[in-house]
Amino acid sequence: MAAQPVGKRRALAIDLGGTQVRAALVDEAGAVLARAEEKTNADGGPDAVIVQMHRLAQSVSDGEVCGVGVSSPGPLDTIAGLALGIPTLKGFDGFAFHASLEDAFRLPVTLENDGIAAAIGEWRHGVGRGRANVVYVTVSTGIGGGVIAGNRVLRGKRGMAGHIGHMSFMAGGRRCFCGNRGCFEAYASGSALAARAAEAIAAGRSSVLAHSRPITSHAVFAAAATGDSLAQEMVADEARMLGQGFASLLHLFNPDVLVMGGGVSRQFGVLEKGIVASLNDCAMPAFRNTPIVPAALGQDSGLLGAAHLAFEAAAAL
Amino acid sequence: MAAQPVGKRRALAIDLGGTQVRAALVDEAGAVLARAEEKTNADGGPDAVIVQMHRLAQSVSDGEVCGVGVSSPGPLDTIAGLALGIPTLKGFDGFAFHASLEDAFRLPVTLENDGIAAAIGEWRHGVGRGRANVVYVTVSTGIGGGVIAGNRVLRGKRGMAGHIGHMSFMAGGRRCFCGNRGCFEAYASGSALAARAAEAIAAGRSSVLAHSRPITSHAVFAAAATGDSLAQEMVADEARMLGQGFASLLHLFNPDVLVMGGGVSRQFGVLEKGIVASLNDCAMPAFRNTPIVPAALGQDSGLLGAAHLAFEAAAAL
Repeated sequence: MAAQPVGKRRALAIDLGGTQVRAALVDEAGAVLARAEEKTNADGGPDAVIVQMHRLAQSVSDGEVCGVGVSSPGPLDTIAGLALGIPTLKGFDGFAFHASLEDAFRLPVTLENDGIAAAIGEWRHGVGRGRANVVYVTVSTGIGGGVIAGNRVLRGKRGMAGHIGHMSFMAGGRRCFCGNRGCFEAYASGSALAARAAEAIAAGRSSVLAHSRPITSHAVFAAAATGDSLAQEMVADEARMLGQGFASLLHLFNPDVLVMGGGVSRQFGVLEKGIVASLNDCAMPAFRNTPIVPAALGQDSGLLGAAHLAFEAAAAL
Repeated sequence: MAAQPVGKRRALAIDLGGTQVRAALVDEAGAVLARAEEKTNADGGPDAVIVQMHRLAQSVSDGEVCGVGVSSPGPLDTIAGLALGIPTLKGFDGFAFHASLEDAFRLPVTLENDGIAAAIGEWRHGVGRGRANVVYVTVSTGIGGGVIAGNRVLRGKRGMAGHIGHMSFMAGGRRCFCGNRGCFEAYASGSALAARAAEAIAAGRSSVLAHSRPITSHAVFAAAATGDSLAQEMVADEARMLGQGFASLLHLFNPDVLVMGGGVSRQFGVLEKGIVASLNDCAMPAFRNTPIVPAALGQDSGLLGAAHLAFEAAAAL
């Protein structure tokens, strides 16, 4: 196969999620030339998921690509290329994900934990551009993230660094999806926000949310916007807890910027004041005034991060 | 001045603490050739402290050195060379520490946050030797630390990364020395252990510790060793909370090894089983079984880390 000229190459990027799988054809400048998405075959097992990824990627490809970048829920051991059990996808425990993807695509594949892929996307093409130290936090159903430190991706021993949602936030507290108690995710994710609102209503608090079935984080923000006082209280709590968790991250990583992505970040304008107030209340003076900014790439952070890794791997060949 | 041959050079290392200041003459293999220490002139202000550091260093020096490595309590902006307010030393807020040290010593000086310096010491000369990803946690009066990620020191934007003691552990909880509530340090430091024991006794619990004035973490461990049940309960709580905090660090940094230093680590043998049980209860399966080991260099971690930085700076000249 003739090599594409550098600068003109294209890569396939796939963002595998627990509910949706997205594929895109991406150029080296980070432009999405074609895209497709569909509901993930989450119960089908790894072979069926790979067939789905391959088919979806073929549907956006129109010729030669230099490689395939894949973002996937973790934890993945990206050094060994193994899925170590993906809570939202059946049958991936110990699966040789990387090798199976290369078999299916017959192309070089890079495989990355989704939080790290999204962090790379925002660092290379989004709001973290040109910054050497970036903490990216995705706040949606769960909480994930990735860290750029000194212009390098922080991966750790097995490539599993950056599992920000599972830092302890309230030791011994609420049960988290991961099995532990008190994780940041169990308090400040979109699901946690919805769960707190549902509990308050079950405890007898009055709110327009009492008529929502089920109560979602989206519904809580919508109710808050109409002046519902319980919903406003829940949103204020959400901002406060995000600020407390973000303060931990500033103390640990001392970034140039902290980027908030994920579905909840669509409400960044509503949350910002509360996040910053809480953060300045929690952070030591030297750590205050770190910019906290919403992600610039929306749902494409992971896709563009995955594409970047595919180009990087191709350049190293 | 004639350059010393590489491999045979010597550096001065100074470990400035809130209570003690230590100086040593160190060779490139990390051997301490001479040492001295005295009580820090903590109320004297920066000029007096620098005079003290210089005098102490002169007392161990016996000839040519290639530079001076200094470990100091933080937060220090080590990029700008500024102290940003050191809680345990008077008058350092905004002080141009690095420039003043170079003026005093008339030698190249490297200045490092103490947690990072100790992490480097253990990485280069201690139990983290040969590992690419090391999290070092010092547990003493407070909690500090430093991180090596991918064979590089994690410093962040201003060199203040690794303030592990001030990650949120119990959001909104106990008041920390830093002004915030709920920090890891406020729960799991040696001082916090002593404070919890004192509170339990004030609340009417019986213990041999009721006769200790003041109650120290050392006294709690000693009482636990004699079978005092309150003290044993406090020690078990200490191990549990250390394990919970360490689990956060494994999720965030995915290290090859987590090294515990500081005064409380002298009781590592007593704490280990409880730490590991708590950690395995909190960490996602993929993160369990990361080795948790005591520091190898005792009080010299910071000195040897500072010396290493001095040699590294000399090599870069």
